[in-house]
Amino acid sequence: MSTFALAIGVGTQNKKGEWLEVYYPKPVINPSDELLNAVRETLGYVGGNQALSLNIALMHTFQDALEAADPAQAAVARELGQAEMHRKLVVTILEEDTTSTSTPEVYLKLHLLSHRLVKPHGINLTGIFALLPNVAWTNKGAIDINELPEAQLKAHVKGEILSVNSVDKFPRMTDYVVPTGVRIADTSRVRLGAYLGEGTTIMHEGFVNFNAGTLGSSMIEGRISAGVVVGNGSDLGGGCSTMGTLSGGGNIIIAVGEQCLIGANAGVGIPLGDRCTVEAGLYITAGTKIQVLDENKELVETVKGRDLAGKSDLLFIRDSISGTVKCLTNKSAIALNEELHANN
Amino acid sequence: MSTFALAIGVGTQNKKGEWLEVYYPKPVINPSDELLNAVRETLGYVGGNQALSLNIALMHTFQDALEAADPAQAAVARELGQAEMHRKLVVTILEEDTTSTSTPEVYLKLHLLSHRLVKPHGINLTGIFALLPNVAWTNKGAIDINELPEAQLKAHVKGEILSVNSVDKFPRMTDYVVPTGVRIADTSRVRLGAYLGEGTTIMHEGFVNFNAGTLGSSMIEGRISAGVVVGNGSDLGGGCSTMGTLSGGGNIIIAVGEQCLIGANAGVGIPLGDRCTVEAGLYITAGTKIQVLDENKELVETVKGRDLAGKSDLLFIRDSISGTVKCLTNKSAIALNEELHANN
Amino acid sequence: MSTFALAIGVGTQNKKGEWLEVYYPKPVINPSDELLNAVRETLGYVGGNQALSLNIALMHTFQDALEAADPAQAAVARELGQAEMHRKLVVTILEEDTTSTSTPEVYLKLHLLSHRLVKPHGINLTGIFALLPNVAWTNKGAIDINELPEAQLKAHVKGEILSVNSVDKFPRMTDYVVPTGVRIADTSRVRLGAYLGEGTTIMHEGFVNFNAGTLGSSMIEGRISAGVVVGNGSDLGGGCSTMGTLSGGGNIIIAVGEQCLIGANAGVGIPLGDRCTVEAGLYITAGTKIQVLDENKELVETVKGRDLAGKSDLLFIRDSISGTVKCLTNKSAIALNEELHANN
Repeated sequence: MSTFALAIGVGTQNKKGEWLEVYYPKPVINPSDELLNAVRETLGYVGGNQALSLNIALMHTFQDALEAADPAQAAVARELGQAEMHRKLVVTILEEDTTSTSTPEVYLKLHLLSHRLVKPHGINLTGIFALLPNVAWTNKGAIDINELPEAQLKAHVKGEILSVNSVDKFPRMTDYVVPTGVRIADTSRVRLGAYLGEGTTIMHEGFVNFNAGTLGSSMIEGRISAGVVVGNGSDLGGGCSTMGTLSGGGNIIIAVGEQCLIGANAGVGIPLGDRCTVEAGLYITAGTKIQVLDENKELVETVKGRDLAGKSDLLFIRDSISGTVKCLTNKSAIALNEELHANN
Repeated sequence: MSTFALAIGVGTQNKKGEWLEVYYPKPVINPSDELLNAVRETLGYVGGNQALSLNIALMHTFQDALEAADPAQAAVARELGQAEMHRKLVVTILEEDTTSTSTPEVYLKLHLLSHRLVKPHGINLTGIFALLPNVAWTNKGAIDINELPEAQLKAHVKGEILSVNSVDKFPRMTDYVVPTGVRIADTSRVRLGAYLGEGTTIMHEGFVNFNAGTLGSSMIEGRISAGVVVGNGSDLGGGCSTMGTLSGGGNIIIAVGEQCLIGANAGVGIPLGDRCTVEAGLYITAGTKIQVLDENKELVETVKGRDLAGKSDLLFIRDSISGTVKCLTNKSAIALNEELHANN
Repeated sequence: MSTFALAIGVGTQNKKGEWLEVYYPKPVINPSDELLNAVRETLGYVGGNQALSLNIALMHTFQDALEAADPAQAAVARELGQAEMHRKLVVTILEEDTTSTSTPEVYLKLHLLSHRLVKPHGINLTGIFALLPNVAWTNKGAIDINELPEAQLKAHVKGEILSVNSVDKFPRMTDYVVPTGVRIADTSRVRLGAYLGEGTTIMHEGFVNFNAGTLGSSMIEGRISAGVVVGNGSDLGGGCSTMGTLSGGGNIIIAVGEQCLIGANAGVGIPLGDRCTVEAGLYITAGTKIQVLDENKELVETVKGRDLAGKSDLLFIRDSISGTVKCLTNKSAIALNEELHANN
């Protein structure tokens, strides 16, 4: 069985020597035997999920072993071999994709997502919150939240600026990796661990949580909550909302299929199939009662939002005269009836 | 009568010697007689609300006087005694909580809120806008808005970066204080003067204005407008809105009680009691006509939003078939009738 | 025919010598003959739209020629004559306002908008997207997106901070110009090319795209999409939306007249006249069916949103009992009928 992932990293520790964050410039999924052998021989790795600390000398030895085995990783080791003394070096190996046991492991998993090496829901993220410290992300780097007040006082006294840009367990993605072919107007709104497909634009009002994102080209001006995946060619309008969990509807994961459009200030609490549209300002939840209309705009049945979960080619509107939420389809009444009563 | 508040600070002035901002590392509410005596003896304070400017030598004298009187404040004075020449030192005393008369006084009041030393609406903020200069908050510190163009030109010429992160009367809170036990994903959305209870998380779409905030643990993904207070255990969904003033309903202050949930993209223009829910996407204002239903879901009465202000255990929805805004309760029709017609 | 615009600038190029961004401290609309003569004589300009590169020596020569011709521009040239070697100097002349042909031309046009020298829709922006490179906007300046990974690696190794604040074709406006009399709480939400009228406040949830903005005093807590113009005295409530194009209604440009109020979390997909109000949470699109009521609140007619485009003194609400979207007016039924059936 092949090893799951491996990466050489450099990061920050607090004054107690606890990890605050780790940067992996070039993580590897399913590393080669040659790469693993170099790790075993120079770092004494004998198996399992490990975050191995290195000093500069050992990084140089490791680099030597990598030159023949894996020139790309050797180049990373060469750069990291020049790290300043206060920077901390690490080689993290995930033999299996199991529950994380250390901060460097969690950071590697978040990198794998943002480097597009695994897709959302494609990696074990159980228990990561407990392993991610709450960090003050500043213009001077990651600072332990307990070490912040003293650092702030000293900065104000000197007239140096210590800007605290975020106080969070997750850093913003772009300080670690900017995947190819994307635009992100305000990077403070995309967490490390987001997955952005080639051709994705995240506008200023867009947001993408970890373990979530877009599989292809999309214009995102709304919020992609944790766990939500948006298919190729779908657009999220300004300020629209996707529910992180299906309120009142169990554990169904919200997703948006391909070629969908969620209007501005709208929202979805059910997964959508392909080519669905939700009109601007309308929020569909699992419990929303909806009149389903056939291709002739005749009422076929009144169902709940959850009954339409994952179905394609639907247009959701609220009739602005009657106030009724309706689902328009391009199917005959018979076909619709069959579909609504099938177990899916 | 005890003195209201006191703090030792360091700040920035423009080229005319006018205050742009003041940082108080450790403000004190109801300072001790020992501390006040040190201020009187070394700084010549004779009473009233004062912002006393100090030079470095006087700060050292003040520090000496504080060593016995108040070791914690002596430590602050010691740090500030090392300030760079261009930094301005100040000791601000608020004998009474009256209308502010200077920029350092306003900054002290905003600090008292964010340090959790006073609660929202617990301090006199009359007239503060006129005393807060509009400042360019940059990566090089606070810059007078009139001095900015020249500074920008010089920075572009040298290839130095002068980032203007905000042009506002209020700085962001976290550059002055990060209260314990909070997370703030995007700190540009919390103003100095916000009050965040222990256990509060402000997500990327959350926002907290001054004189507003959370009293306990809350997940805030919506906007807490100026003056709005959210009780312990209440959550604000993504993009939801709280009105800063009660439109069309007089001067009632909007508040959210405990254990409430305001859904994503919803909004409230009335104060909520405890354990209330507003469904995602629904905006309740003071003028919204609402059908009140009893525990059997029978219509009891149609009222306006303002008639339900501050009441507990309500669920607000818009019926997605009839389009009617309804308020579901767990009370009998008789109890509801009595409550609706009581003067409260 | 007078020349359209001219500006002296300094900017950034990538390693290939391609422009990433240009800063023009003092752009000129309709430059004087004296200024143009100085450009012709010292820079060899013979006409047309040109972005002329200069070295330091030539900038000094140009400055000498400007001293008599245009002291204000001479001052700019003097400052730019002190630029660091890696900074690139340019003089850009737009003889006519035609389709852009270079990055410096596009940057000049965006500056003209944000300096209030031209109004939105008052300048030719055809084809600008292709001429604007996608740039990593960092705390170290503009970096070519392809040169970013290496720069990030080196920064992490050294423990220097390379913050990527935006990955976008447009920079934020305030790093180039802060127009007089405005407040912008979170500057990452206003793009270069926005036009902000004197007296405008953009709150944290506000947003202004390029070729869009406010003509006078406004409180903006919602989103002004590309091409949308808001008249003097109009307010946009928190999280409200303006559609960039008229969905389903052709090429009508969305605009908001004077003294309008769009409520929180509301939205408009039609242009509004003066003194219109859209209640909080209501989204009006071109296709929304709306009951028009006269001054006695009697139904006159049911129309579509697009039929009310640009009309003044309208109040849009959704009846919270019937769920019907209604437009309240202060006109008699006869006057309304005439207006609705006029061709406008």
